[in-house]
Amino acid sequence: MDESSIRLKVQKELSPRRFQHVCGVVQMAEELAKRFGSDVEKARLAAWIHDFAREWPVERLTQTAKESGVDPSFFEVKELLHGPIAAANAPEWFGIEDEDVRNAVRYHTSGRPGMSLLEKIVCLADAIEPGRSYPGVEQLRQIAEHDLEEALARQMDGTIQFLIKCNQPIFPLTVLARNELWEQVQTKKIRTGGSVSSFST
Amino acid sequence: MDESSIRLKVQKELSPRRFQHVCGVVQMAEELAKRFGSDVEKARLAAWIHDFAREWPVERLTQTAKESGVDPSFFEVKELLHGPIAAANAPEWFGIEDEDVRNAVRYHTSGRPGMSLLEKIVCLADAIEPGRSYPGVEQLRQIAEHDLEEALARQMDGTIQFLIKCNQPIFPLTVLARNELWEQVQTKKIRTGGSVSSFST
Repeated sequence: MDESSIRLKVQKELSPRRFQHVCGVVQMAEELAKRFGSDVEKARLAAWIHDFAREWPVERLTQTAKESGVDPSFFEVKELLHGPIAAANAPEWFGIEDEDVRNAVRYHTSGRPGMSLLEKIVCLADAIEPGRSYPGVEQLRQIAEHDLEEALARQMDGTIQFLIKCNQPIFPLTVLARNELWEQVQTKKIRTGGSVSSFST
Repeated sequence: MDESSIRLKVQKELSPRRFQHVCGVVQMAEELAKRFGSDVEKARLAAWIHDFAREWPVERLTQTAKESGVDPSFFEVKELLHGPIAAANAPEWFGIEDEDVRNAVRYHTSGRPGMSLLEKIVCLADAIEPGRSYPGVEQLRQIAEHDLEEALARQMDGTIQFLIKCNQPIFPLTVLARNELWEQVQTKKIRTGGSVSSFST
């Protein structure tokens, strides 16, 4: 399926407001892919399909996730199911077989340890696309100008703080991801002689 | 070994300031054990020995942890090693074989999912003993008057927020513990008709 057919299929599935968000993620994913040397086409494809099942009711999400063999740990937090569902069905729904694209879709909400460059880009693009307007997003955009890992680590820290504020469950993969990203940030700063704070795993 | 001999052995191992903290934890653990119906003697024993290795240098901690068969995941965050070390050596050092006491010592810093009543009490006592004076501790003490799980969940959320602020690693066991504790809090509130916020695992 070519990109414009995928775009159309996504548009049909989503509300205008959600589709607007997806277009923003595609634009931002392309920018980040160019900035940090990733595959632009793959970044755009992952961005187009990442929220395909985002507006499904929870019963349909749960049912489809079961049928699609989604990892049981994702069932603990319903807000995470739409990514793994789109990833699992990407070959059938969009003709997308590429594992890196599908992992970028699968982990775009939670993150995970060992994220690929593409995974980091799609995860961050989702959080800082031009339509996002939460407190702190402008600072994340500025950091994303030069440091993908630090922007993503700070974005995940913001997510964890938000979940704490709302008494909602924190997904362990996100914690493992942010621990690793902060380690990567510190390692880079040591290597380049920048300032180092106290991250010590 | 009787309690006064254990007390003396702990006092010899620690700085006066740390020993003062331990005495506070013993007092608070006893109060909480009486309040929530746990074994007072076990709570006091766990409190006495929980910080026995707290002032050891990191090399000694790492070496002893290896020799004591401490779970490898604890090595990722050095601040967590002293609990598992004291727990592993409690039979030899203090004649304490009781598994619940040793688990309360083992997990007093990190927490874990499936904490026993005694584990919760020692973990919380460590955080709110009379000598503690960080912002929010008075609120935790007030909540601990009537809800052990909510006080502990809030205390762990505070720890996670502190670690985020300091760019330090967040231990996944703590996240799993606070997710479960918040679930227990919500379940209790639903059962008793109290106010329920949006915790939804």
